[in-house]
Amino acid sequence: MENQKPDLEWLFHPRSIAAIGSTRMDESTGRVPHTIFFILALRRLGYQGTLYMVSRTGASEAAGEEKVYPSLMDIPGPVDHVIFCTPAQAVPEILEDCVTKGVRSAAIFSSGFSESDDPEGRDLQEEVLRIARRGNVRIIGPNCMGIYCPESGLNFRVDLPNSPGGAGMISQSGGMAMRAIFHGTEKGVGFSKVVSYGNESDLQSWEILDYLAEDEKTRLILVYIEGTQDGRALARSLKKASQAKPVLVLKGGLSPEGNRAASSHTGSMAGSDPLWQAMLRQAKAHVALDVNELVDTAMTFHYLKRPAGRRIALMCISGGLVVNYTDVAVRHGFEIPELAPETKKNLSEVINGPGTSFSNPIDMSSLFFSDRVYAPMLEALDKDSNTDFTLFIIAMEYVRGLEHQYKVSVQRIVEAFLVIVAKVDKPFVVVVPPSIDEESRLAVERAFLKAGIPTFLSMDGALRALSARIDDPREEAVG
Amino acid sequence: MENQKPDLEWLFHPRSIAAIGSTRMDESTGRVPHTIFFILALRRLGYQGTLYMVSRTGASEAAGEEKVYPSLMDIPGPVDHVIFCTPAQAVPEILEDCVTKGVRSAAIFSSGFSESDDPEGRDLQEEVLRIARRGNVRIIGPNCMGIYCPESGLNFRVDLPNSPGGAGMISQSGGMAMRAIFHGTEKGVGFSKVVSYGNESDLQSWEILDYLAEDEKTRLILVYIEGTQDGRALARSLKKASQAKPVLVLKGGLSPEGNRAASSHTGSMAGSDPLWQAMLRQAKAHVALDVNELVDTAMTFHYLKRPAGRRIALMCISGGLVVNYTDVAVRHGFEIPELAPETKKNLSEVINGPGTSFSNPIDMSSLFFSDRVYAPMLEALDKDSNTDFTLFIIAMEYVRGLEHQYKVSVQRIVEAFLVIVAKVDKPFVVVVPPSIDEESRLAVERAFLKAGIPTFLSMDGALRALSARIDDPREEAVG
Repeated sequence: MENQKPDLEWLFHPRSIAAIGSTRMDESTGRVPHTIFFILALRRLGYQGTLYMVSRTGASEAAGEEKVYPSLMDIPGPVDHVIFCTPAQAVPEILEDCVTKGVRSAAIFSSGFSESDDPEGRDLQEEVLRIARRGNVRIIGPNCMGIYCPESGLNFRVDLPNSPGGAGMISQSGGMAMRAIFHGTEKGVGFSKVVSYGNESDLQSWEILDYLAEDEKTRLILVYIEGTQDGRALARSLKKASQAKPVLVLKGGLSPEGNRAASSHTGSMAGSDPLWQAMLRQAKAHVALDVNELVDTAMTFHYLKRPAGRRIALMCISGGLVVNYTDVAVRHGFEIPELAPETKKNLSEVINGPGTSFSNPIDMSSLFFSDRVYAPMLEALDKDSNTDFTLFIIAMEYVRGLEHQYKVSVQRIVEAFLVIVAKVDKPFVVVVPPSIDEESRLAVERAFLKAGIPTFLSMDGALRALSARIDDPREEAVG
Repeated sequence: MENQKPDLEWLFHPRSIAAIGSTRMDESTGRVPHTIFFILALRRLGYQGTLYMVSRTGASEAAGEEKVYPSLMDIPGPVDHVIFCTPAQAVPEILEDCVTKGVRSAAIFSSGFSESDDPEGRDLQEEVLRIARRGNVRIIGPNCMGIYCPESGLNFRVDLPNSPGGAGMISQSGGMAMRAIFHGTEKGVGFSKVVSYGNESDLQSWEILDYLAEDEKTRLILVYIEGTQDGRALARSLKKASQAKPVLVLKGGLSPEGNRAASSHTGSMAGSDPLWQAMLRQAKAHVALDVNELVDTAMTFHYLKRPAGRRIALMCISGGLVVNYTDVAVRHGFEIPELAPETKKNLSEVINGPGTSFSNPIDMSSLFFSDRVYAPMLEALDKDSNTDFTLFIIAMEYVRGLEHQYKVSVQRIVEAFLVIVAKVDKPFVVVVPPSIDEESRLAVERAFLKAGIPTFLSMDGALRALSARIDDPREEAVG
């Protein structure tokens, strides 16, 4: 059986949206109701279509310019997409209205369906699915955040970034989607389309995956998945997607305990670990072990062309740190080979301070951040035939030492360095581990990211992400 | 053979110190010479003894109040300790002066000894050692930073913290010592005495270890080591030290490549991995794989009484995150068991919002940071007989969501939460992973640390440190 070819483009471009649910402020907590929160989010991201609110509880101050209708049927114009924030029990009846009204898709934020212990929740979800299938309404969720698409202004939280990018994502968890969007954006990775699909009653993960595989705006696909109802279809779609673009997968519920947690999270049976491992391996998807790794790997694909192999030119100040970082690299299956004779010769012409050595790893010692040294040094390393990429570890405590001893600012040091790095052709990555002056560390990290250089918090994180990048045959950066 | 019992107390309390080397500013780079840098560092940490500078190049503006003497012999009073910043070749002759002058100890910052490729360096080191032994001068290094002891004002860098604490450290690398001191202090772990001992020509790691094991001010010992000249003595001292206090070891040069780097770093032959592993295991030292883990583990010993076992009560907002964090915990050999029936009953009385579940892991969902809920919830978990400690994952993107939705500040949320946590008896740790608003994340991390709660950047980091803490039989926190 071939997967049917879903054209979900329309899903990301509704002409009008109605958010349905209470619009009343909670007086005791001061909490903004979800219905209004969704409307505020859509407005903030510049959604250009018509917005409506539907609530039996009537108008609310916070609603602002949108009129509140007592029912969907009272809205004069067409409604393409609805967002349910009502109690679960209210969904079926309102969904009947959706069918009548010709609504094309509904994201059900409401929980209390098959993810709950209550068998009633499961029945309710089946009822919703029946109505939707009969009436040709596509359901996202229930128990999900729905769609984020900066290009068309679709949004599920007021503070999500409004700059589109090349990463698409399907996520069975809204929280994981948010973490990936926020953290990814901090790392310079923007998103094209994200679908948080929760209980996956109607719209299936594989359908969205098929769409993202074909979507021109999406150049990299992130997946957070806990379970599936159709392993074969998912396996096929994963394989197809990963032939088209790099696919990075975080699987939730690999352990029995995690599986149990997943079941009460999205009602999904996560399935056995070996089965998933085999499926992901066959699909040639890159498996991340946690959300940090997912984001780090996305960043690596975004910025970095493929290093030809695992041979690192490792640069660091501080002999002790570089010894340990070398051990860490070897433990991750990387090599720190001797540099080519030609490189050593070139280096010996520039590095001759006491305590420095021409071997790999390169202990910069007191020459750290001397731009007279860095330019010819990086040039020499760039041409080195024995190494595949350069990894530079910035020890913030040394940078601060230089500020004291040479009376230069970190900012100036980094600026000078970035001018040099811009001329480097070989893949180049940076690790800036926390030590002191976290504010300065952040400034350094952000300066490197802005210059298009993958920048990591830890050597472990860098090497795990780089492993995925090297294993992927695609040569060019996707960002 | 019994280790001789060194009483090194005097080493940390010299009555006077002379820094020897060029005091001339480098006009082209604006660099402050090391000699002056050491003097500034000692002055800044409030060293109460007499400071001298010795330099053939004569006086310097930057020298400030200390008089510069052309030679050690010209100093009128006694000199207990000297710091060598001269070229390596100049050390032997000046060391003869030290002998004559009755100097008791010398830290040789200068490099170019047995760590260099040059056989002359090795000869020079042997010559230095001969003179020192004959003249009864104890040598620290060469190729080291020397001593940091906030209590007596000994210092090797102008910006090291001046608040003493309970962690002692021996480090074959000055850079590693600095990283540990800076990062440890950021995490709330202060230091009693740190000795950076580099090439280990005279004063041996095991001697300092013996001292730290007996030192009343030291309640926890950190070790960074690349090699040793006397494996038996070191093994005995490690064992003895770890019977007295928790000993955390980072071994540099476990891989052949790291070993090679270590050899050009401190001239030490790092030895074979299995031999070291066996020695450290027999000594019951806790082995860290990198410097972050070393510091995280120190923090855990500093703040945390011993959890009775590996059963976690895992709290988090966001179902997806908690599913993944559960998987991570299981992979590290921890359990997330069902809570005791009594606990579930108590929890069901406080948590009843939609999307929340009473099982472990505890998905806080929309009740995250509602102090009405937290107080009784933590009280219930505190008494839970099925779990050994509570681990709380703070998702900053949710915290920011609450700021928007409830119009409360992170600061207020954290303050309210800390009031509750102060009443908790069971070991309690926090993980605040990076996601957005790093500045807010830092503020949250610092607030928790200030309240005496171990706070980690990553779940991996937390669990590795907790493993060491649980494996150690000592019940009480050392901080």
